[in-house]
Amino acid sequence: MGAPAIPGVMKRGRPRSEQVERAILRAAGDLLTEHGLAAMTIEDVAARAGVAKTSIYRRWSTKGTLALDAFLADFLGSQPLPDTGNLENDLTAALRAWVRTVRGTPTGRALAELIAQAQSDPDLAVAWRERVVGPARAQHRKILEHAVARGEIPDTSDVEVLMDLLFGTAYHRLLQGHLPLTDRFVRRVVAVIVAGAKAGAAAPPTP
Amino acid sequence: MGAPAIPGVMKRGRPRSEQVERAILRAAGDLLTEHGLAAMTIEDVAARAGVAKTSIYRRWSTKGTLALDAFLADFLGSQPLPDTGNLENDLTAALRAWVRTVRGTPTGRALAELIAQAQSDPDLAVAWRERVVGPARAQHRKILEHAVARGEIPDTSDVEVLMDLLFGTAYHRLLQGHLPLTDRFVRRVVAVIVAGAKAGAAAPPTP
Repeated sequence: MGAPAIPGVMKRGRPRSEQVERAILRAAGDLLTEHGLAAMTIEDVAARAGVAKTSIYRRWSTKGTLALDAFLADFLGSQPLPDTGNLENDLTAALRAWVRTVRGTPTGRALAELIAQAQSDPDLAVAWRERVVGPARAQHRKILEHAVARGEIPDTSDVEVLMDLLFGTAYHRLLQGHLPLTDRFVRRVVAVIVAGAKAGAAAPPTP
Repeated sequence: MGAPAIPGVMKRGRPRSEQVERAILRAAGDLLTEHGLAAMTIEDVAARAGVAKTSIYRRWSTKGTLALDAFLADFLGSQPLPDTGNLENDLTAALRAWVRTVRGTPTGRALAELIAQAQSDPDLAVAWRERVVGPARAQHRKILEHAVARGEIPDTSDVEVLMDLLFGTAYHRLLQGHLPLTDRFVRRVVAVIVAGAKAGAAAPPTP
């Protein structure tokens, strides 16, 4: 499987297999955006890409892992690494960028559908953690490490829990749809986390 | 549709339609526990309940809404309303009970699968919000209202955001599976939220 390299410039003499892979990913990305994951079939992707179904199954074991690759480049590229010198500003910028990417957009629907699909597709669940959750958290961890380095929060803070608080809360509104992802929501979520973290509540109790 | 009444004692003269409904729900609950939602079909439920498929479709529009009813009584009954006189203790007890109910259990798998299914089944999404999210939040809102009444947190606190922080964070680990739902996780999540809320970070800034 593996993420396809997508160079910015078309080269002459591109190998046939790379052309096929790009055509498949483009077709899958279009179908995902137009109709959503539930309606997307390998048959449709093959037909739109002009390839045989076996050409797809040779590269991707399930439609979920194919959709993941089609989704990935777009999504991670839209998530910045803010570095304003202030934890509250950095977290606000990161969460605002995420909300902008997912609220009412095809990307948001694809994100929700991929998490949904991962609940019953173990290959996709593993790929999702390795290729979306992992890289996104590596980026957000830096924001918290910068805050530790500046002395804003204790160096024993549980940064994993702080990241779960920030994005888990936001994913919750995306997936459950009970309340909107407003800017006031972003500001209050960040304010509670920053106040708690600065108070040392994410660190082990001092003996 | 509507939630079925499940009295504790079998009555003589129970109407035939209620017997059918109970048989369907029991069959759906068993299949959900044994094989999960993705593998469950209306055909299988009908066969196990000994009823016609039309008897199911007359009562439930999709397999998702049927699974929801089968899941519901069990789940909400397992979630207590702690009232210890202390916000941190109450939230810890509520989140611990949730973790105990879902971590590595068929109920946890059903919960994840129902949220997954709701991403592509609008009927289920509406029923999910009305019949799971709504009642659960009504219960947790009381915990926060008790804290406001005791003066532990400001009465202008955004209790919706505080509930999202508590359960969104926990759902995140359940659905993404990147890290375990440990008791340390529970304690730190609660500690950050309580410290933030007590500092007034969930309330509008004072002018």
